[in-house]
Formats: sequence, structure tokens, C-alpha cells
Amino acid sequence: MTTLLFSSPIWRNGFFTLILICTLSAVTAQTPDPDKDAVVVDRLYDQVLTDSRCYAWLETLTKDIGHRISGSVGAEKAVAWTKSVLDTMHLDSVWLQPCMVPHWVRGKAEEVLLLPSGKGHAIKLAALALGGSVGTSTAGVRAEVVEIKHWDDLERLGEAGLQGKIVFYNRPMDPTKIRTFEAYGGCVDQRVVGASRAAKYGAVGVLVRSVNLRIDDFPHTGTLHYDSAYSLIPAAAISTLAAEKLSKNLQINPKTMVSIKMHCQTLPDAPSFNVIGEIRGSERPGAYITVGGHLDSWDVGEGAHDDGAGVVQSMDVLRILLQTGYRPRHTIRCVLFMNEENGLRGGKMYAAEAIRKGEEHLCAIETDAGGFTPRGFTFDGEASVFSNFYEKIRTFQALFDPYGLKLSKGGSGADIGPLKVTKALLSGYAPDSQRYFDFHHTADDTFDKVHKRELELGAGSMAALIYLIDKYGL
Amino acid sequence: MTTLLFSSPIWRNGFFTLILICTLSAVTAQTPDPDKDAVVVDRLYDQVLTDSRCYAWLETLTKDIGHRISGSVGAEKAVAWTKSVLDTMHLDSVWLQPCMVPHWVRGKAEEVLLLPSGKGHAIKLAALALGGSVGTSTAGVRAEVVEIKHWDDLERLGEAGLQGKIVFYNRPMDPTKIRTFEAYGGCVDQRVVGASRAAKYGAVGVLVRSVNLRIDDFPHTGTLHYDSAYSLIPAAAISTLAAEKLSKNLQINPKTMVSIKMHCQTLPDAPSFNVIGEIRGSERPGAYITVGGHLDSWDVGEGAHDDGAGVVQSMDVLRILLQTGYRPRHTIRCVLFMNEENGLRGGKMYAAEAIRKGEEHLCAIETDAGGFTPRGFTFDGEASVFSNFYEKIRTFQALFDPYGLKLSKGGSGADIGPLKVTKALLSGYAPDSQRYFDFHHTADDTFDKVHKRELELGAGSMAALIYLIDKYGL
Repeated sequence: MTTLLFSSPIWRNGFFTLILICTLSAVTAQTPDPDKDAVVVDRLYDQVLTDSRCYAWLETLTKDIGHRISGSVGAEKAVAWTKSVLDTMHLDSVWLQPCMVPHWVRGKAEEVLLLPSGKGHAIKLAALALGGSVGTSTAGVRAEVVEIKHWDDLERLGEAGLQGKIVFYNRPMDPTKIRTFEAYGGCVDQRVVGASRAAKYGAVGVLVRSVNLRIDDFPHTGTLHYDSAYSLIPAAAISTLAAEKLSKNLQINPKTMVSIKMHCQTLPDAPSFNVIGEIRGSERPGAYITVGGHLDSWDVGEGAHDDGAGVVQSMDVLRILLQTGYRPRHTIRCVLFMNEENGLRGGKMYAAEAIRKGEEHLCAIETDAGGFTPRGFTFDGEASVFSNFYEKIRTFQALFDPYGLKLSKGGSGADIGPLKVTKALLSGYAPDSQRYFDFHHTADDTFDKVHKRELELGAGSMAALIYLIDKYGL
Repeated sequence: MTTLLFSSPIWRNGFFTLILICTLSAVTAQTPDPDKDAVVVDRLYDQVLTDSRCYAWLETLTKDIGHRISGSVGAEKAVAWTKSVLDTMHLDSVWLQPCMVPHWVRGKAEEVLLLPSGKGHAIKLAALALGGSVGTSTAGVRAEVVEIKHWDDLERLGEAGLQGKIVFYNRPMDPTKIRTFEAYGGCVDQRVVGASRAAKYGAVGVLVRSVNLRIDDFPHTGTLHYDSAYSLIPAAAISTLAAEKLSKNLQINPKTMVSIKMHCQTLPDAPSFNVIGEIRGSERPGAYITVGGHLDSWDVGEGAHDDGAGVVQSMDVLRILLQTGYRPRHTIRCVLFMNEENGLRGGKMYAAEAIRKGEEHLCAIETDAGGFTPRGFTFDGEASVFSNFYEKIRTFQALFDPYGLKLSKGGSGADIGPLKVTKALLSGYAPDSQRYFDFHHTADDTFDKVHKRELELGAGSMAALIYLIDKYGL
């Protein structure tokens, strides 16, 4: 029959018509078809709002598994459990990608005491050792405190003023920044590099005001980076309430003393995994679109917003796409990265493997800004390709307008950052940021702080973006 | 000196220059000056994020005064306290505008029992009488329950199926609506007119599924409207959890019985007040821009999101404008409306007085959608003037982009609705709607559900909109 068709004039007409249709399709495939795409996007949101799994999954991840710092039993359980869930989802493949991770342990709870100047009781300051910090001796560190609000003060005081002292970084977040991540960026340097900068002048310990806009009693931990040129001194975050109290005390008595006892230590690197599931593309299986969050959390609270939300949303994105009957052209991967918080080993390994195998990465989306109501996506990429990508992305804006999402240039996510060199388009899912730093890296980052619909709308938004990128390419 | 100037050629040149400048100012005053206005808008947001009072005021209103249904002691206290606060704010006038309000009282807590079919215990269903409902006799109402999901079912069953029964309206909110107010609009009719529609066919009582997207055990009260053509039968809302339970019971046993005891009653109208404060305009004091929320709440919880948030935001808008040194051209009024929930008497009185006095109302903004993170403003107005207004409003959009607010057409607010006939531009402040119906009209609408920064950003947004309307007119 095929032969007959090939030799018949009717077929030849048909052939040309076919070519014409294909050509037209290729042309029209470059820009969204507003009506049809709106229907699909709507169906994806409907699906997640009526039949999602992410909220129930988050309950298991936070309540049954709990916090899960790299190298911990919690992290191990989280790997096994998320893989077991992906295994039930009728994906084309699910696997573990090994990577070695730092293994820092807090040990017995830290104790930071504001010592009385005369008689009277010491006051306990709510504190958490910073991730990666060294511990103290059993006797602890006991010294006068010097409050630092600007890096300049450190230089000005120098060795004469800081030798043997505990440096107390007390620069607060700027409340006037509308996006709280900007305010975070404006003071997290104290936490990350404060210890070594103080050690340079002979300080014996560091306390950092928690990176939090509220005045409350939850200390916010987070990673620190030591500069090996200087002594490794112990460093802890204290709650904003404790920081206010300590600061007030120092105004009254500049010779205020504090004692710090911390039992944390860094053990040898431990084996762990990224958890990956994928739906194989029907047309370009060798080209990948990744959506992911990070599976590890800090070792307090439940890692609900940071980043349990991103984990369960990423998993549900694949489920939603399949449930609505969508079969992607490119391969869609959900990647649950290990060790974002204190090493980024998972993200680095994922990129290294992609490069080693010569994989073509079209796009990677990270959700690591909490499970709050969606506000948009930000986009980034390697300079030589980004403007073309972004031009295409802008054509999707109208489809997100009914859902209140804005597509704009901006940062993406720590885990997908290493993929930038592969010339993938990188995107950060950007939910509303007002409440994020209330919970970030604290014992208060628990399941009850996440709102079901807000979480679901995030998953729907990512499913919609992936659908559009998959359909139209970049 | 003036005479000299008038006769001098130098003056004449100066005069023409002056005219030119005035003309140019008049022309340029028609559209925003992006740079200068952005600075002012930024200053307004900075002010509210660093030195607001709204959150502390909300704590007093919710924790010290509590709920405040029209005619109650709580409402009286709220009037006196908000006036006393406005009195400290260095406004040009503060006064009480009298209005008579409905006075409905719940009395002893209602009791709704799901009765066992054989032996066994009755199960208590979490319920709240609807506002305005009649009570039951001391013995209560005890009858079989008929579940209704669509109005059509009611007509179909008719008197034969409904006579002597308790009608149970169980149409849920549609979770696929992105703006939850749309889903609310899609099922609140059951609560508002369900009692009389059931009474028409001889039903003896009504239970309504709470208008809530979550499955939880908080009943949501709200107003009902009786049609005086039919018997006034008692009506209560039951929690979504109770609704699911009752529905399941009816599937097993279609003869399931419920007993309802309610002690509510409507007393004679009581005297009350709108609370009003104003900053007199420097150029057009007889032209008004109003910002307001409603002071009354339902008689459960603390009326935190509904509408304590709107009350304290409206008060803070005036304070922020003054604090930044802004002196408005038009008169800016903060109006705390009484009786939005069950009568709208305050809103009607405010409009009636405006009309009686021939006041020119340029614009009125209502904040009655919760103290959540800002998403935008919606605008409405009398058909003959609205399109011109809206065209001007659209020129402000770019100034709100950095804050994530979208200006669009849409409803405004119940209290300011009666001002529409004065040809004022009406605007509804539109915060994110995802969490609103979790708390709306429940015992769970408490202070701790409101986020300080989200509340403040709302006040900043309204201050910015008022600044622009005041500067450029409409």
C-alpha cells in the first residue's frame, strides 16, 4: 500500500500537504497557542488542586522521618522512602545517584550563657551551633563579648580589641527589602565567614544574630565556611530575642561575659545519594528537563519549608503530568538533591555526571524557597545562550497571568547552579517570601507551617512551566 | 511691590514663564512622574515596614477587645478604643457617625446531634447558628435529614420529600478556582438563602456545609436572609468534617436523624457608630478619598483577618502618610464601618450622609479580604465614569510592579458599595486569597493567624495608592 501511494499523484499531493502541515507546525510550535495551552495549563492546576499527593507526602517526610542532615539516619530514610514512592509512580526509571557527603554532628545540645556581672544567675541564650562549626572543650569558651554591626568595626578594633574575645555579629536583616531573600543576602555573610574573620584578630568564639526578621526565640542555624589560614573557632547563632538581650546588656556593661559550650564535630564523609526519577521523552529522550528540591535539611525541626516542600512538589510534578495524560517530548526528571545545606555535593555530582555522559540539559528548575503561594519564576543561564532562552520564556507570560505568576530574570537554585556550564536554562520557583525566614533553619520549620493549597499551587506552576518548555523547546 | 512687578516688563516675562510652568505642571500632573513617585512610594513602604502600628493595634483589638458583633459590648469597646487611638494621631478631625444596627444574639451555645439509628450515643456535630437565624424551642428540632447538592434537587424533591425534614446543603467550594473568593461566590448562596428555599417546601430546619476549602472541625457562621413569604426556620453551619460525616451516615442510613437546639434571637436594633478620622486636603478639602475596613465581626474568634486587619491597616494608612510628611491635596478619610457582617448599616449611613451633604467622593478603598500578602487592587465604578478612571489607574501600574501588585477591574467592598452612585472610584484591596477561607467567620480567626509583614505591606500598598490618586486626581 505504501508503494502504491508513493507512485500515485494523489499521494504526491498528499505528501506536499503533509510537508506543508509539518512546516507550519514547526513554525507555530515556536510560540504558544494561547487557547490550547491555556486549557492544558488549567488542567494541570485542576489536577493538583483536586488530586495531589504532595501534602500527604510532606506529612510523611516531616512527621515520620523528620529532619535529615547529610550523613544522618534521617537522610538515609528520606532517600529510601522517596525512592520507594517514585517506584510506585509508573515512571520510566528511578535510581539512586551516589555521592559522598560531609558528616557534621551537633552532639549534645549547645549551651550559651550570658554571665551575670556580679552575683545572680546566668541567663541562657537560645542558640544553635552553626553547621560545620568546631565544638568547644568540655570547659567551654568563656570571654568578654564585643558587638560588631559592620565589617569595618572588626578591622578598626583589630587584634587589640578582639584578642581573646567572643565576637557578636548583630547586623539585622533589612526590613525594607520587599523580597526577604534580598535582606537575607544582605547579612548572611556574618554567619558564613564571620568566624574566620574574627579568628584573624584572635577572637576565641563567635555568636551571630539569627537571620530572621521577627523578634522571637528560635535560633537559626546554617552553614559556615572556615578559612584555613586562621584558627577554627566555635560559632553559634543566637535567636533575635537573645541578640537584642545581649546587645542591651552590652550597653549597660561593656564587659559582659558569655560562656559557650558546644559538642559538635565533623566526622569522615559518608556515602549518600541523589534520588532521581524520570519520564522518558517521546521525541528527544536525550534532552533533559529537570525539576528538583533538596532532600537534606538542617538537624532541627522537620525541614518542612526547607526543603520538604520542594521535594514533594518535584515528585508531584511528574505525577501530575502523567495523570493528565501528558507524554513529554523531552525526558523529564525529578531530582531530589542530597546535601544542599552544607556541601552541595548532590548538585555537583548531578552536574558532573551530566557532563561526563554528555547529556543535553535543556532546562532545570529548582524549588527551594518554601511551600508558599506562587509569585513567579526567575531565570538565569550562561551568557551566550540566555537572552534567546529568555525571549522564548517571555512568550509564556500571558499563560501565567491568571495564576498571578511573573516570569523574570533572577537567581535559580544552589543545586542546579553547577548545570549552568552545560548551557541549560536555569529557573528558580519563587513563592511569596514574607514568611520564609520565620522558619528557615529552625526547630519551628514544621509541617503545620505549610499550607496545602499554597504547596499544591507551586507544584501546578512547575508542571505548567515544564509543559510549555517541553512543548515549545527553548 | 506687586504693583511694580505688574508694570515691569521683567515681571511680564516672569508672568508668562509662570503661566508656562503652571501649564506644564498641570499637563505633567496628569501622568505619574516615574522617578519621583517611585521614591515616595518606596518611602511609604519603608515607613510601614520599619515603624507601623497596625500589628500592635491588631493585638489590642483582637486580644483585649475580641469579637465584636453589632450591638455587642465588644463592638461598643471597639468604637471607643479605635476613636481614642485616632484621637492621638494628630488628624484634623475624628468623630463618630451614628447608625442603628441589628442586634442578633447567639445565646447559649447551639447543639447539633447526629442521632444513632438504633442504640448507641448521639454524635455531636460542630455547628454554629447562622447570623440572623431564629432559635428553636427548648425541645429543639428533631427530624430526618435530606442532603441537597444542587438547587435542582430541592425543586425535584418538593414538598413530598422535604415536609418536616431538615435540609442539609452540602455543595462544597470548588477547589479549582485559583481565587478562593470565586469559589466562595459559587456556594455561599446555600447559606444566605437556603433556609427560606427549604421552608418553602415545609422543611423544619437547615444545616449548611461550612464555606471552607479545608476539611476541619471549625464551623463557619455568616449571615442568612429570610424571605418573609415562608416560615422562619432555624439554620446552622456545620464544619466540613461534620458535613462529610453526616453525608457518609446518610449513604448508610437515608433515614438518619439530627436534632438541633439553638438559643439565638434578634433583639431590637441598637445604636452604634462608624468611626471616622480625616486629614483635611490642602487644595480640595471638599473632595474625599476614603480608606476603610469594618469594625464589627462575627461573635466567635477574634475577627482578626475579618476584619481587624482592615481596621488597623486603614488607621495606619493615615498615620504613615503623616509620618512621611505628606500633606494631601484632597481630604483623606479613614472610615471604620459598623455592621458589615449582618446589615451593612454603617456603609449605607456613610453613603447616605455623603449624598445628603453633597460631598464629592473621588475614591473609596476597602480592605476586607484579610491581612495576607498583597497581590493587588481591583477597581469598580459607575459605568459613565469608570473607563476614564480606570485608564488613569492603569498609569500607576509600573509603580506597583516592584511590590508585586496588579491593578485590575473587579469588585470593591460591601461597605463602600453604596458610594457607587456618587460616581466615586471604588477599589478593593486584594491580598492573597489562599488562606482566607480557613479562618473566615470562625473561632479560629485569631491574632496569631495574621503575619506582621504581610499586614504591614497591605497598609503600605494602600498608602501608595492613595498618594497617587491624591496627587494626580482621577
